[in-house]
Amino acid sequence: MAAPQQTYNVGILGATGTVGQRFITLLSTHPFLKIHTLGASERSAGKKYLVATKWKQSTPCHDSVKELSIKSCDPKHFSGCDIIFSGLDHDVAGPIETAFRQANFKVFTNAKNYRRDPLVPLLVPTANPTHINLLTTQQKTVKTDGFIVANSNCSTAGVVVPMAALQATYPGLVADVDVVTMQAISGAGYPGVSSMDILDNVVPFIGGEEDKIEWESGKILGHLRDGAIQHLDLDVTASCNRVAVLDGHLACITLRYSSSSASVPSESEITRCFNDFTPIVRGPALPSAPRRAIHVLDDQDRPQPRLDREIDGGYAVSVGRIRNLVDRAGSIRGVKFVCLVHNTVLGAAGMGILNAELAIQQGFIKPSLEGSRGNL
Amino acid sequence: MAAPQQTYNVGILGATGTVGQRFITLLSTHPFLKIHTLGASERSAGKKYLVATKWKQSTPCHDSVKELSIKSCDPKHFSGCDIIFSGLDHDVAGPIETAFRQANFKVFTNAKNYRRDPLVPLLVPTANPTHINLLTTQQKTVKTDGFIVANSNCSTAGVVVPMAALQATYPGLVADVDVVTMQAISGAGYPGVSSMDILDNVVPFIGGEEDKIEWESGKILGHLRDGAIQHLDLDVTASCNRVAVLDGHLACITLRYSSSSASVPSESEITRCFNDFTPIVRGPALPSAPRRAIHVLDDQDRPQPRLDREIDGGYAVSVGRIRNLVDRAGSIRGVKFVCLVHNTVLGAAGMGILNAELAIQQGFIKPSLEGSRGNL
Amino acid sequence: MAAPQQTYNVGILGATGTVGQRFITLLSTHPFLKIHTLGASERSAGKKYLVATKWKQSTPCHDSVKELSIKSCDPKHFSGCDIIFSGLDHDVAGPIETAFRQANFKVFTNAKNYRRDPLVPLLVPTANPTHINLLTTQQKTVKTDGFIVANSNCSTAGVVVPMAALQATYPGLVADVDVVTMQAISGAGYPGVSSMDILDNVVPFIGGEEDKIEWESGKILGHLRDGAIQHLDLDVTASCNRVAVLDGHLACITLRYSSSSASVPSESEITRCFNDFTPIVRGPALPSAPRRAIHVLDDQDRPQPRLDREIDGGYAVSVGRIRNLVDRAGSIRGVKFVCLVHNTVLGAAGMGILNAELAIQQGFIKPSLEGSRGNL
Amino acid sequence: MAAPQQTYNVGILGATGTVGQRFITLLSTHPFLKIHTLGASERSAGKKYLVATKWKQSTPCHDSVKELSIKSCDPKHFSGCDIIFSGLDHDVAGPIETAFRQANFKVFTNAKNYRRDPLVPLLVPTANPTHINLLTTQQKTVKTDGFIVANSNCSTAGVVVPMAALQATYPGLVADVDVVTMQAISGAGYPGVSSMDILDNVVPFIGGEEDKIEWESGKILGHLRDGAIQHLDLDVTASCNRVAVLDGHLACITLRYSSSSASVPSESEITRCFNDFTPIVRGPALPSAPRRAIHVLDDQDRPQPRLDREIDGGYAVSVGRIRNLVDRAGSIRGVKFVCLVHNTVLGAAGMGILNAELAIQQGFIKPSLEGSRGNL
Repeated sequence: MAAPQQTYNVGILGATGTVGQRFITLLSTHPFLKIHTLGASERSAGKKYLVATKWKQSTPCHDSVKELSIKSCDPKHFSGCDIIFSGLDHDVAGPIETAFRQANFKVFTNAKNYRRDPLVPLLVPTANPTHINLLTTQQKTVKTDGFIVANSNCSTAGVVVPMAALQATYPGLVADVDVVTMQAISGAGYPGVSSMDILDNVVPFIGGEEDKIEWESGKILGHLRDGAIQHLDLDVTASCNRVAVLDGHLACITLRYSSSSASVPSESEITRCFNDFTPIVRGPALPSAPRRAIHVLDDQDRPQPRLDREIDGGYAVSVGRIRNLVDRAGSIRGVKFVCLVHNTVLGAAGMGILNAELAIQQGFIKPSLEGSRGNL
Repeated sequence: MAAPQQTYNVGILGATGTVGQRFITLLSTHPFLKIHTLGASERSAGKKYLVATKWKQSTPCHDSVKELSIKSCDPKHFSGCDIIFSGLDHDVAGPIETAFRQANFKVFTNAKNYRRDPLVPLLVPTANPTHINLLTTQQKTVKTDGFIVANSNCSTAGVVVPMAALQATYPGLVADVDVVTMQAISGAGYPGVSSMDILDNVVPFIGGEEDKIEWESGKILGHLRDGAIQHLDLDVTASCNRVAVLDGHLACITLRYSSSSASVPSESEITRCFNDFTPIVRGPALPSAPRRAIHVLDDQDRPQPRLDREIDGGYAVSVGRIRNLVDRAGSIRGVKFVCLVHNTVLGAAGMGILNAELAIQQGFIKPSLEGSRGNL
Repeated sequence: MAAPQQTYNVGILGATGTVGQRFITLLSTHPFLKIHTLGASERSAGKKYLVATKWKQSTPCHDSVKELSIKSCDPKHFSGCDIIFSGLDHDVAGPIETAFRQANFKVFTNAKNYRRDPLVPLLVPTANPTHINLLTTQQKTVKTDGFIVANSNCSTAGVVVPMAALQATYPGLVADVDVVTMQAISGAGYPGVSSMDILDNVVPFIGGEEDKIEWESGKILGHLRDGAIQHLDLDVTASCNRVAVLDGHLACITLRYSSSSASVPSESEITRCFNDFTPIVRGPALPSAPRRAIHVLDDQDRPQPRLDREIDGGYAVSVGRIRNLVDRAGSIRGVKFVCLVHNTVLGAAGMGILNAELAIQQGFIKPSLEGSRGNL
Repeated sequence: MAAPQQTYNVGILGATGTVGQRFITLLSTHPFLKIHTLGASERSAGKKYLVATKWKQSTPCHDSVKELSIKSCDPKHFSGCDIIFSGLDHDVAGPIETAFRQANFKVFTNAKNYRRDPLVPLLVPTANPTHINLLTTQQKTVKTDGFIVANSNCSTAGVVVPMAALQATYPGLVADVDVVTMQAISGAGYPGVSSMDILDNVVPFIGGEEDKIEWESGKILGHLRDGAIQHLDLDVTASCNRVAVLDGHLACITLRYSSSSASVPSESEITRCFNDFTPIVRGPALPSAPRRAIHVLDDQDRPQPRLDREIDGGYAVSVGRIRNLVDRAGSIRGVKFVCLVHNTVLGAAGMGILNAELAIQQGFIKPSLEGSRGNL
């Protein structure tokens, strides 16, 4: 599909936070999504962006954004926007995002509040892009031109992309998923994790994280049928750890095959399955889409967060160390691998951006000439 | 049992390395084990200890050791020693340790060379202390007064101590063990891991480590019967990661119960099982034994390497986050927990020291008056 | 002087904070100072200590302290105490400490509030112990049996101990002091420095720190004459940086000699001057005093925070890399060296403890039998 | 000046090392410098680049480079190259670079071997670009079409750029320079600094570094007169520390003014002097030149390595915290500031690239059509 003929104006809620900063970094070079309005708390409203923000990205804030005046998160300040990205904390996100949808805005949120809403697609663009069609049901039900699309949890993204590849090629093969994550500090925002907790240390607990991975996987890997998502029947168990890494969540994943599996794929078949997985195709309409959803790395000690998180601009998942799970009798019972996801790109802001590109491509966001901008 | 009436002279092979330094640190305050001779490579031989050593412990080297003259690792230099601790690298350890045993020395080694020898006890003192009796077979077979006792791999120690507790109380309960480790840099010695590999990073691979955990667990948890070890039938699968931690290997462990288990223990029963596990008893004969083999920590974010590795002087294993593994039908299928082992204390030098205390207590090392010292 | 014949009961204000935790760690093995009462904010009052505290020390909290019930920082709760240690934040410390002195308590504070009070000794026990005699003036003036002794800033301690050694041997030699510090995160308390600010980073600014070093040095190195401190005339300039170190402030110090100096000491004379400096003598009365106030380390890459901060239990200052400052004409213009101070031992809690030992030794705290305990 | 009309083929010596990797990263998008031949040790020769290299950059290696076959560092393998960049270690660089020059190659080296050669410009392009004209003398003397241009030491670059700005505006103002550096681990190459040396630590020593800063500053800030460099008469003293930072050397710099200075600039005048300093002008001929040689940052806690090292692509120096050095009598004696240089961009590979652009612009490298390529 061709690139959109016009640009779309973007509003960012929670623009001063870690996810908001990543939205700004990623959008500053986007071909057709243009930053228009920045929203944050009442405390920041009225200030210039860089005055109100502790900018913690390793690339400088774009000049055009520095001087923007921050607005409070009220739909009335965002009337020029075609698309709303929300990097709000969950403790405030719910009612604000509801209000924006009610005001006919198209909202792409990173907050958890709406993820379990049966009307809201929990959309990982390189795993379950077709779930975007749930928006038809949502709009019909809530009776607005607006809608809400939810990102998954950042760690969940690293699990469901390879799982989706396997489901597509070997449906029903996997019965159990064990995930142990080693997650970056940026996932906790700023100031987030105290340096006294993480220097020379690992914290083997992240509040709520394990439950999110376990629950969200079933919805994302489920089927959209008759206007509703049927969750996949799958046992997922997660253990989440915080490590001294700035960006990039690493996960050791063990999949156990269903005992009814007649034959199981070889390691090289799984490698091919991952490398070939193409749920969406990079192109002018989807400029943020990775060249490949999954990059399988050959070296035995990869992926590594510092070295591999930027592959495909952080929109791809990297996988390595694919090896059979063999029991003591020599039978293959499953497969193990290591997976890396850039937690603030594919795992957060980038997922929202790619979801928005997908929504435009699929016709859920009309060009603004046709009046699609939220209005009050 | 009472404390030994006399002291035992100790020789340390590989004294300049990371494990050797930990031996020296731990022994400098030991009530009856006295550092007598330090051995290292030919390159270091003849030099004073602190001249030849890049001391990397966070406590200063004991004054009495600084000035000791290093010997090459030839048994003839160790004639005054009752006990030999070996912190040698595996690429040189094999023939040297054989030579020491042949010269009637009692050798406690941290190297991997002898671990899979059916005559050598793979001894984790707080897991399988009775395996020390395999020494009777060994001495009979190799026909020397000397012997070799092997430490387990450092990560393995963190797995087998809680597993031994469960085996003792619930034999046959566990069928599968999944281990994901996050291991400290000191485990790789000095200079070991490059700072460019670990700062802002995790390396999801440690050469040979996974195989060690998987293989050694079966031997350690096995039974000594008729003078031989029968390995435990158990599926262990491991994924090993290096993280930016100085000391202390953390592991996320998932145990799956045998499908034939009629009833399964509750989380609090497992907690009690761990806390009550007492394979050896701290006392004058075993001064390095931890007060408890396993400390179960209550806080949901513990154990943490920096905060908990020194519990019981590093000789105990800490466990936290004990929680049932429940499938989507609500059935308990196993248990998950987090485990921490101090990799250079219980996981290396401390294990050797405690093994030596045990060997003395059990009569495998006679007081030197009776001529037990190695002689040539 | 002999050890005190009796014990002294100690109250700790701000007991849950980083400095408070260090007080507890250091006092748990003290021969005659016994923890009696723990004070913290109203929010913590009534709770058991370990419930109210995020314990972040690498050694476990002593059992006898865990269960103590926290009191609010009101003198009435501390009536059984002979000595009060304050680890309070400066934003609350002032009036509380005043109230305790008014209630006849002997207060040793780590807060900055009273440091510039001309009646309060700014006491670094291994630099200016005789300034304790300013207490005579203080007690006379404020008309109480209580008093306040102030610790210096943690970084200042690392500067003034070697400076005091030089002043004692070469009075008037030094005219200018340049200090560049690299300070540990524990100096900022908990949660303190965000991990996102310090991982893979240095922060070249610590609010207020440079001014403290510059000002406090003059008072500490000054002379007590006629019941008042005459500040030393000295130009001190400081640049303070935060680095990814848990404990231990490192400083690069450049001293420029007064142009009027006829002759200047050699590097080895300065080494000797530092090693020989003995302002107080370790013994039963001063059990926390370091064996040497300054340890000069020979290796060219020392002192290092991780390796050397525990020298003499953290009560000594380590110095290394003593080398002349030579101008391009070949003349010696000063001297440069590297200095390390354990910021929460000698730099905070330990300084308070050693100051209290000194106050007992010098007769400023009478045995409690004689009624020295604060009363209301 | 217009952009070159043609491209130049580039050979990289030491291509597998840390500096070599940065050359490849920076050149992969260069408009007119094209990677043609990669050289490394005999051990690597014949292998494909990514097979022989432990790639440690945080962006993936460019596809076109991965498959290049490595050559040994013999001029005969580089006959298609117009420009040679050397990232060789100093222990091998000398004779190899001599051989390349002798074979008429234009060599830009990061090694220290030739820095003190009076015929070789020690060229920091944003500090002393006119020194490139020393090449006329060099070529005349060594009688080749080839030449050698030396980069400065990485830390030196951070010192001389602001110093050059001050010299240009306030010649003779500064008499003394005190530099304390906090240097990144990438400066030591790979594997370089052991993780056991730098985690939770600072190492206050880097072999040879202080002498380099002290000596090189005088040459770089000197004057080219009558075909030779007259060193600047300046007292520079440095203290170098290694910190846990991946890239970016930070320095605290204290400048003392000459006592003969009649008037001294204000802080804002120095700020302006830095911001306005434009020794070379970014443009088509100098595409790697920073927009500004020095960026003065306003925030009181900047520059910081992680946040600011990428300013202007790493080719600019960042400065912050400009403040007068005031003595106790209130007189301004100098100025202090913090300075950051990206040690592998401006401090190494980037400096070489920018020097090469400058050499092309100034006519020292002719288009290859005219036969400027090295030939044998």
